Amino acid sequence: MAKRNIYLDTIPVEEAVARAKAVLDRKALIASETVPTHEAAGRVTAGPIFARCSSPTFHSAAMDGIAVRADTTFAAREDRPVSLAHGTQFVFVNTGNPLPEGMNAVIMIENVVQKDEATALIDAPAFPWQHVRRIGEDIVATELLIPQFRQLAPCDIGALLSAGIYEVQVREQVRAVFVPTGDEVLDFHDRPEPRAGQVIESNSQVFMAYAASWGVRASFTPPVPDDEETLHRAVLDGLASGNHAVIVGAGSSAGSKDYTRRVFESVGRVLVHGISVMPGKPTLVAVTDERSGHPGRLLVGAPGYPVSAVVCLEKVLAPILAWLTGAAEPERATAQVTLARKTPSKPGMREALRLAAGRIGGRIVAAPLARGAGMITTLTRAQAVAYIPEASEGIDEGETVTAELLVPKTELDRVLVHVGSHDNTLDMLANELMGLTQPLRLVSSHAGSMGGLTALKAGSALFAGAHLFDPETDDFNFPFIARYLKELDVTVVNLAIRHQGLIVPKGNPLSIQGVEDLTREDVRLINRQRGAGTRILLDHHLKTAGIAPADVRGYDNEEFTHMAVAVNVLTGAASCGLGIFAAAKALGLDFVPLARERYDLVIPTAHMNDPRITALLATIGQNAIKAAINGLGGYETSLTGQVMRPGMGLG
Amino acid sequence: MAKRNIYLDTIPVEEAVARAKAVLDRKALIASETVPTHEAAGRVTAGPIFARCSSPTFHSAAMDGIAVRADTTFAAREDRPVSLAHGTQFVFVNTGNPLPEGMNAVIMIENVVQKDEATALIDAPAFPWQHVRRIGEDIVATELLIPQFRQLAPCDIGALLSAGIYEVQVREQVRAVFVPTGDEVLDFHDRPEPRAGQVIESNSQVFMAYAASWGVRASFTPPVPDDEETLHRAVLDGLASGNHAVIVGAGSSAGSKDYTRRVFESVGRVLVHGISVMPGKPTLVAVTDERSGHPGRLLVGAPGYPVSAVVCLEKVLAPILAWLTGAAEPERATAQVTLARKTPSKPGMREALRLAAGRIGGRIVAAPLARGAGMITTLTRAQAVAYIPEASEGIDEGETVTAELLVPKTELDRVLVHVGSHDNTLDMLANELMGLTQPLRLVSSHAGSMGGLTALKAGSALFAGAHLFDPETDDFNFPFIARYLKELDVTVVNLAIRHQGLIVPKGNPLSIQGVEDLTREDVRLINRQRGAGTRILLDHHLKTAGIAPADVRGYDNEEFTHMAVAVNVLTGAASCGLGIFAAAKALGLDFVPLARERYDLVIPTAHMNDPRITALLATIGQNAIKAAINGLGGYETSLTGQVMRPGMGLG
Repeated sequence: MAKRNIYLDTIPVEEAVARAKAVLDRKALIASETVPTHEAAGRVTAGPIFARCSSPTFHSAAMDGIAVRADTTFAAREDRPVSLAHGTQFVFVNTGNPLPEGMNAVIMIENVVQKDEATALIDAPAFPWQHVRRIGEDIVATELLIPQFRQLAPCDIGALLSAGIYEVQVREQVRAVFVPTGDEVLDFHDRPEPRAGQVIESNSQVFMAYAASWGVRASFTPPVPDDEETLHRAVLDGLASGNHAVIVGAGSSAGSKDYTRRVFESVGRVLVHGISVMPGKPTLVAVTDERSGHPGRLLVGAPGYPVSAVVCLEKVLAPILAWLTGAAEPERATAQVTLARKTPSKPGMREALRLAAGRIGGRIVAAPLARGAGMITTLTRAQAVAYIPEASEGIDEGETVTAELLVPKTELDRVLVHVGSHDNTLDMLANELMGLTQPLRLVSSHAGSMGGLTALKAGSALFAGAHLFDPETDDFNFPFIARYLKELDVTVVNLAIRHQGLIVPKGNPLSIQGVEDLTREDVRLINRQRGAGTRILLDHHLKTAGIAPADVRGYDNEEFTHMAVAVNVLTGAASCGLGIFAAAKALGLDFVPLARERYDLVIPTAHMNDPRITALLATIGQNAIKAAINGLGGYETSLTGQVMRPGMGLG
Repeated sequence: MAKRNIYLDTIPVEEAVARAKAVLDRKALIASETVPTHEAAGRVTAGPIFARCSSPTFHSAAMDGIAVRADTTFAAREDRPVSLAHGTQFVFVNTGNPLPEGMNAVIMIENVVQKDEATALIDAPAFPWQHVRRIGEDIVATELLIPQFRQLAPCDIGALLSAGIYEVQVREQVRAVFVPTGDEVLDFHDRPEPRAGQVIESNSQVFMAYAASWGVRASFTPPVPDDEETLHRAVLDGLASGNHAVIVGAGSSAGSKDYTRRVFESVGRVLVHGISVMPGKPTLVAVTDERSGHPGRLLVGAPGYPVSAVVCLEKVLAPILAWLTGAAEPERATAQVTLARKTPSKPGMREALRLAAGRIGGRIVAAPLARGAGMITTLTRAQAVAYIPEASEGIDEGETVTAELLVPKTELDRVLVHVGSHDNTLDMLANELMGLTQPLRLVSSHAGSMGGLTALKAGSALFAGAHLFDPETDDFNFPFIARYLKELDVTVVNLAIRHQGLIVPKGNPLSIQGVEDLTREDVRLINRQRGAGTRILLDHHLKTAGIAPADVRGYDNEEFTHMAVAVNVLTGAASCGLGIFAAAKALGLDFVPLARERYDLVIPTAHMNDPRITALLATIGQNAIKAAINGLGGYETSLTGQVMRPGMGLG
């Protein structure tokens, strides 16, 4: 019971980090070492560093010119120049030259009206120490140059060398090892082809990449099976090989095969089990005791789901490791972003909401991406992450919140925010746009064709992709625009003509040729959900063919995505279903083209002069994108890049 | 002439960078290579990457529990539970297990009221796909995963491996070599002891440290003498050894020994000579042509002064190199800071103003540091840099500007802003404070004792160091506080008693014992400027000894710092001068103690409960700091840490 309670009693990440800092003795745990100064950037000083030499070593000329005694020039005026004798009254100096004794000012060569080698004419007075760098102006020998616990920046290296410091005492880099666990995880070194229920282990490499950026000396082990004894040994090995921290990947939850906590309890004391963040909740933090043979070291149990692991690494592990060395905690830039969609959130838990964000007009609009802990691609697609506070029940549409940026702030101005129906041709476009001299990042929030139009109305998208077929008019998109975007003037540009067809098993064993075959006894359909564009398309074709839904076996079995339809076909749960070519291709299935539809980009005319939209349209106009789209298969580019007009249909 | 004109015609850094981007062909210049995915973090993709495997590979359980067919549970109610048969109606699953065919939902084990191995009781309905991760939910095989020109973040590595991508085509890292020049610069490898007019070469290592953080493969050469032919060869060698960019350190100005421009013109075309930023102005940017044997590569002439070099590296080189690979431009976090002192600036030139910055009350107060281009330590001491725009004539006291942060934003809350008279004991304090579990960074703006009191009045300092002696009352600081800080309630804490004395040559050849000796024929004094506390102290002692200034040879020769006084003694320009022990120690001179003065910390009582001040006082109260101060020599710690009262004098 106790175990369960502690887990349920989740705490904020800040407290989790504080608990670790409170029990770890960083001065005892992390030793110091001597390194050459010119290799010490990023390292943390182990003690104070005092200057050995002064800089400059002597009063020296800060300009090319002549060195003088200021008081000999005081009388100089434009109309009554003063003449100085070479050697006694002035000496030529270059920048950096030591100032001759008795001289206390430098006059820039440009301001010297020279008469001859022996004499110089001055038409303005020089003040004492003018253009002179004085001894110790920058660095005074024996003085403190850098204090202890200072992470050395590039400039610090320059200062240290200038002060004659050629080696420095620094704190060791923290050493940490990542131990992935799980019977179902495959070692990526074997370049596996995962089967059902298997996953390729990757969290260890996400950790390795982070660790490199943190200045941590990191390593990892092959996946450890779900076995308490093996895990126990792996943790002890990690400690024995000199690591200050051992991170166990997965198994930190309270499930039947989660041994991490038990192992941690057998070699140390658990400080934290459960943080009040989603994803990331099942995070463990412990400190080793004598039983481990290496007391006082850090143990962290990172959740197995990739996004949960990232939150644990960024919010719990990173600050603790940074503190151990004395390095700066990694810190992300932030920005105020306006939410494009209402987003409820569970009270009591902070939530890491991944956002597709970009500037639209004066504000940065952010569309929430999928929220699953298992969806690592939401992080590859996001530009920002907003943490919805524990106290909050969610964020309203149009509400402005502070978000951490995953990209440089300036990049938000180069983002094209798309909301609407997603299509693979959009990915081809995204790829082309990244190749521009001023790259543009197309970020897409999948909300369906209607969702896209709604976003345009709300001003939360720069453009929207739509493939809405209207059986009445036999036209695409315009009838819906007329109905739902009355007050908005838009320009519609075609990206591609898309094929929808019947996804059938490889080799099309039942040789299905069209909708007519759907009435056959041996054919079982898998349908899309009501309202889906694809469902509307099917109904249209059935009607045209004079087929009643009742005559189609499986008509009432619904799926929600093209991929899910394809899966039904792959597993034999259905013998065919209507979908796009890409879904069939993804699962190696065959495809019987049935219908063609227009996938258009709907752009508010007000944005047509936005440089990003201009670049977008220029790119669509080129052959490169057409070639890329045709390469996908299942598309036609006869209309690509053309401005569409109502009633054009398929042109 | 042309040369001169181009140099005088300085341009903004943004235009300098744009000119380089306009002529460099990054796709031709930077090749691509294949690297293992798990070593590709930070690299830039050379082309689009498509997923090989889907993730999940199959519909799979997202929770530990039982897999069911949703419709078999719809009737379940708390009062009318539904019973399911094992095998046919439910199957036990762990997180990640593939969903058995026909099942489309998972019920968490916590919500299963199990009867026996054969039957499970459910008291609530499950909706279709509840707690199920569906095939391709995260990644769909064959779809675009990452576009070209994308710098891979840690999460991207996770996504790539999850999609079965084990190696990736990435763009080469940019290779750049730094060639330091100058007859006066010494190779740090030789661990030199610089003499007058010599400097230790360090810019190459500042470059190396930056380059590492930029992901650039950098190298450097030993210093090249000021000789056109040698420099010409060095540049060609740099290109021949495969570098995409050659950076020449120093010699980029228009002086008699500045050959960089001529060399660049002999192997390429100069695009920029002179940027409108101080420091940093004499920056050169060129592109090689056929004469170099390697056309289309980048040449940069970086100024020799360390701060100028840093501005050139950060503002010109970094953006160009980042663009060449396609990596994100290094970007600093910014903050709004309030200037503590009026700071005039030259119109037409942008100025990089280095700032000692920290939070005081609601705002971040920033005190300008010294502005010399040769003062690298201003960058080691600064927390922020504000760029005063070309158009501006300066910033007023109390004006708020945007500044780039050199430290994490959060660290500004852990900064103790000191303005006042600087003393080495303050450095000892700074070092101790960095050792705390929550380190505090003491930053100091040298403004003299009176300047410190003024800063307190203006609320632009957390505390001020002062050693103001009042001959009338024979007391320290309080008489001045009473006069100048009437409306402010302050607490005064002593940091140390400081010795002032006569700085004399090593061995004290003239055996000077005190002020009485200053009247001797053979003794020549070097004095401090009017108003200096040390000058006041000297006058006081002369008066007490009944000596008239007129009787002191050299009394009218003034210097502005302790160090400058010591230099006069070192060079024999004077036989003695009044100053602190540290100045004598720095130049290896002898010291004849003459007077003792109190160096106090003046703290507005309103700040006494600020956690930073509490920590400061706690630190002063400990023996560690006293030991450190005594170790310096020239100090006493009998009053250290004690609260001072008016009239206490030296206690």
